[in-house]
Amino acid sequence: MADSWSSSVDAHLDWAPGSGRKALADAVRKAIRDGRWQPGAVVPSTRALAHDLGIARGTVTRVYSDLAAEGYLESSQGAPTKVATAGAGPEAIPETAYARKPSPRWNLEPGRPDPSLFPRDLWATAAKRVLQHTPNETFGYGEPRGSLVLRTTLAAYIGRSRGVIADPARIVVCAGFSQAITVLGKALQDLGITEMAFEDPSFNRFRNLAEASGQQIVGVPVDEHGLRVDQLTSPSVVVTPAHQAPIGVTMAPNRRTALAGSGAIVIEDDYDGEFRYDRHQVGALQALAPERVVYSGTASKSLAPSLRLSWLALPRFLVDPVIAALEATGTHPGVLEQLILADMISTRAYDRHVRRCRAEYRSRRDKVVAALPAHLKPHGISAGLHLMLPLSREVEATVPGIAARHSLAIHTLAAHRMTGADNPNGLIVGYGAPARNQFAGTLNALQKLLAEL
Amino acid sequence: MADSWSSSVDAHLDWAPGSGRKALADAVRKAIRDGRWQPGAVVPSTRALAHDLGIARGTVTRVYSDLAAEGYLESSQGAPTKVATAGAGPEAIPETAYARKPSPRWNLEPGRPDPSLFPRDLWATAAKRVLQHTPNETFGYGEPRGSLVLRTTLAAYIGRSRGVIADPARIVVCAGFSQAITVLGKALQDLGITEMAFEDPSFNRFRNLAEASGQQIVGVPVDEHGLRVDQLTSPSVVVTPAHQAPIGVTMAPNRRTALAGSGAIVIEDDYDGEFRYDRHQVGALQALAPERVVYSGTASKSLAPSLRLSWLALPRFLVDPVIAALEATGTHPGVLEQLILADMISTRAYDRHVRRCRAEYRSRRDKVVAALPAHLKPHGISAGLHLMLPLSREVEATVPGIAARHSLAIHTLAAHRMTGADNPNGLIVGYGAPARNQFAGTLNALQKLLAEL
Repeated sequence: MADSWSSSVDAHLDWAPGSGRKALADAVRKAIRDGRWQPGAVVPSTRALAHDLGIARGTVTRVYSDLAAEGYLESSQGAPTKVATAGAGPEAIPETAYARKPSPRWNLEPGRPDPSLFPRDLWATAAKRVLQHTPNETFGYGEPRGSLVLRTTLAAYIGRSRGVIADPARIVVCAGFSQAITVLGKALQDLGITEMAFEDPSFNRFRNLAEASGQQIVGVPVDEHGLRVDQLTSPSVVVTPAHQAPIGVTMAPNRRTALAGSGAIVIEDDYDGEFRYDRHQVGALQALAPERVVYSGTASKSLAPSLRLSWLALPRFLVDPVIAALEATGTHPGVLEQLILADMISTRAYDRHVRRCRAEYRSRRDKVVAALPAHLKPHGISAGLHLMLPLSREVEATVPGIAARHSLAIHTLAAHRMTGADNPNGLIVGYGAPARNQFAGTLNALQKLLAEL
Repeated sequence: MADSWSSSVDAHLDWAPGSGRKALADAVRKAIRDGRWQPGAVVPSTRALAHDLGIARGTVTRVYSDLAAEGYLESSQGAPTKVATAGAGPEAIPETAYARKPSPRWNLEPGRPDPSLFPRDLWATAAKRVLQHTPNETFGYGEPRGSLVLRTTLAAYIGRSRGVIADPARIVVCAGFSQAITVLGKALQDLGITEMAFEDPSFNRFRNLAEASGQQIVGVPVDEHGLRVDQLTSPSVVVTPAHQAPIGVTMAPNRRTALAGSGAIVIEDDYDGEFRYDRHQVGALQALAPERVVYSGTASKSLAPSLRLSWLALPRFLVDPVIAALEATGTHPGVLEQLILADMISTRAYDRHVRRCRAEYRSRRDKVVAALPAHLKPHGISAGLHLMLPLSREVEATVPGIAARHSLAIHTLAAHRMTGADNPNGLIVGYGAPARNQFAGTLNALQKLLAEL
């Protein structure tokens, strides 16, 4: 092959005359990568290539020398320059495959706020203000536990909005409850606690993450009053007292008291605490026993899950273990976004946005309830972004097929029941998911589904 | 105690007449939390409290009922309402303690870009554009491997700027190299690879994270040509070929070739690849063996570490294991910031900013070199944000004391040598760290330190 390279035409270089040295180096690299200049092959002499390309020989010499420094070429004293053998045959890079299954036309999956409600203008205004005024240290490494500005703002916010007892030193900012449960799982493990109870049913994603963090997972049944605290034997437990995920009940007062006094370490996932419709808010369980209960709040429902911003208010004994576990993950949320959230909260733009969303979701809740056939009694309608319709086990099993025919993404309790559990059975209607202009169509699809059950 | 509560004065409620039901509930909650309303104590009757406060009895009844629902109070048929016992004595929350040691006046720590160079205006402009134009799905959950928009932009960017061979399907966005090394450690472990070599010396932070992720850490010496590839026996290795961290050498061509062909899985930490001053850029090692080398780039030096944004270009066999490991961490960087970075890269605002920073750091490099006493020969001056001054072991050991006297934060190689290693010894001068208006003072502190060594 080397012989044929007396001409640059044979060298297959994608190089236009006059485009300069860098372009020539790029062309040679490309030829090597593409396998047109084969590993081990002698390259055209500098004289020949310069002549054929009509450029100075020194230019070619310099390009070869650069490429030798990069390892594309090998040159040794007295021997012809060759294509380096380590550059050999990178396996063909496969065609990029983004093909995913097409999403269903309509979506009622739980745990999703309407992305069209994201307050773009409020966020942009807050971002501009933060970028104008924040001190330079914002652009350093940042505190692993989260920005002090945000932690101070959150301590006041969760105190006033959710009755949480917290000071900024006990707050840790996380990238969503997903990261929080992972970090808590590790921190508890470091303290010798390796079993974590979850409500049965509960969202399987968090159980899986807790398990991956090293915890053994145990289920405790939920009834119409919430967690069966009398059946709790694990040293730690994750609960959703304000609006059980996914069946929707609110934990009864005596259960709250019993749980707070049970001695277990309680992780209170207050995932949709801002969205309560029918009565005065139920304050956080955490306030009953701030040294036993971890409070977890999030911007995933109130703003957007893609922000990856949540917060923990921790019992004192967990502060250091949680920060250590967080540092071992090597990551924390970006500081700019923390400061923008803090700005929105302290200017009350966040409150105004939450109220606007609450009105929207409440109206959807009303429309879903009004659209239900008389024989279906919804559970969990007083709060949150989803409600639950009890079904028999047999009817529940027919949902996926029917939903697929109507191109509707919707969950039943099946995926969230824990191994071996026989009940409850039902349909979860996540009415937060559709964009506003999709809601009517989605509701229509739901009605068709219900009519066929 | 119950007897004395016939008057609201004795009830110690922080409540102003006319402030409403919510304020009354807050006041009672606070009284219980503070221990003024003791656990188990009978509370004032609704009649008595209403009378004393001069409000409707129904208001008090409603407040009691709300607080019972929250678990603060216990009421049962026919018995007087009491303060719930689980509300008992949350341990006193300690005074918030933010006290940290005061930072030294001057800073020459490595790995830190000047935070005052962060392009606030460019970022704000890009943020505004993204918020105006991004589709609603941006505010959903986001892809764990990173936004497709950013991955597509990065594939082109690292191809053109660093010669990396990548397509968007092989790129994974991480929250900094710290998260990347953690995730890579786990992914390799899942593939049965449990030993990871590091350059000796190398920044200890990443070794610690790799170890925490389950890898056994092994050191391989570095000489003036970079990693001693002939001494590499581990199945995987982390290297900094463009500008060795911390000693500053550039890996020699034959070492690059040997490493690419060694069969080891190579993690190329291209942490400051954009900052090369004295010659044509040295392209990424990855291009020599894209199926064996993981390329890692970052915005931590070019923009700000607090953004927590970095990227990996992966060999095909590692794509799925890395995504699985990343999902198990429960987190990925915020999507908005990913899109803002993509916007900056594709509008070339990022390139312009990098050029501006390069000129600034190059000028600092020149000033540091000019300020050195004749007997100190700097290493690693052709690139990056730091250089290294070799010292004897004895002199190195005197640095911390002298630096403290001059209030200068600066590293020696001591912290970064691996256990048992005797050399190299030296001082690391991280000239990126000071803000622009602090540089002259910092250089002055360095000169004083050097004069005393």
